Amino acid sequence: MSRPQTDIEAGREKLVETAEQIIRERGAITFTIADLAAEAGMSQSNVYRFFASKDALAEEMAGRWFADKTAIMEKLVEEDIPVREKLYAFFARRLAVMQQRFDENPELFAAYMELGDLHFEVIRGYVDLADHYMAIILAEAMEEGYFRGLELDMVVSLVNMMVQPFCNPRVMMMLNRAADEEKLRLIIDAIFDGLHAPSGQTGETELHLAG
Amino acid sequence: MSRPQTDIEAGREKLVETAEQIIRERGAITFTIADLAAEAGMSQSNVYRFFASKDALAEEMAGRWFADKTAIMEKLVEEDIPVREKLYAFFARRLAVMQQRFDENPELFAAYMELGDLHFEVIRGYVDLADHYMAIILAEAMEEGYFRGLELDMVVSLVNMMVQPFCNPRVMMMLNRAADEEKLRLIIDAIFDGLHAPSGQTGETELHLAG
Repeated sequence: MSRPQTDIEAGREKLVETAEQIIRERGAITFTIADLAAEAGMSQSNVYRFFASKDALAEEMAGRWFADKTAIMEKLVEEDIPVREKLYAFFARRLAVMQQRFDENPELFAAYMELGDLHFEVIRGYVDLADHYMAIILAEAMEEGYFRGLELDMVVSLVNMMVQPFCNPRVMMMLNRAADEEKLRLIIDAIFDGLHAPSGQTGETELHLAG
Repeated sequence: MSRPQTDIEAGREKLVETAEQIIRERGAITFTIADLAAEAGMSQSNVYRFFASKDALAEEMAGRWFADKTAIMEKLVEEDIPVREKLYAFFARRLAVMQQRFDENPELFAAYMELGDLHFEVIRGYVDLADHYMAIILAEAMEEGYFRGLELDMVVSLVNMMVQPFCNPRVMMMLNRAADEEKLRLIIDAIFDGLHAPSGQTGETELHLAG
């Protein structure tokens, strides 16, 4: 019973690799299923056995692209480390993966960004998942007294904005690798030590010094 | 003596407007000097009287694009307002200009971004100028005791990173107008209240509470 599944997986694997090969060679993502079939030495109808459409191929490629980042986040939220360290690691570990992937092949990396723009509905799910994991960590921090006077949704939005060069691959590329672990550490500290509602709104005058 | 200068200015003005017209109509910046001449009803040699090259045209367009932002920064650094308010205004006033321009014509806005990518050496000068003005404000804050233990260059870099959605038009577009004044205010507060060297590095254990 398992053989057909394995065949399907092997075929999908081969086609994804072929698609990446085409992207690497042409530096572009504008290939057709016919191009893909020719490059893979398959008939078009055979390609359609593995992927019903180019959208389905893009979805598979996105899944592989995000797989290790998702694994990092899943593992991290369960770890028993201080919450400030946890938020730092949430960005630092994924930054390391992104930077390694970028250094290995900047053109392929850029092509994946384009692919993402064309299939944003697929990407959206992964972005939302990252926000979900980040919200778990930030809620933990709020229980410890951080971000006083702010709503969780607002904190998620603010933190996302403040760390764009570390979590948004396009911004990382734009800033030409200026994003590094030392700067991330200082920004995470600023988030924990400085992010709070204006003192008038919480009825308090002092800054919080929790942690 | 002034008439030729005026003629030159009028011709340049007309050609910049024509270039924007072409960009608006075609949504693309890939026009030639021949296209520009035809659209402006001029001979090509006449166009070259006003702009020696497409680079020179791009430089003029960039100058106009940045003129009001530069004026905002020049005026602001001279104002006698609290330094925290000054840094807020440094970003808020230019954000308002960017957002207004984007709302007026999103396609033209996006086309200007592309033009910038193609002529990055021109943009670079304006980015450096903005950093220069920001450094003046941040140095003033450091004199008041903020950002303890950090070098000015590092503070400039960190602040730039933390406010990308408010000062980088591409990131502003990517985040789909999530950047607003309320969030900017909270992030500027986090920068002033939370950005400092790790306490071990400054020989201090408490956070600074200046301002």
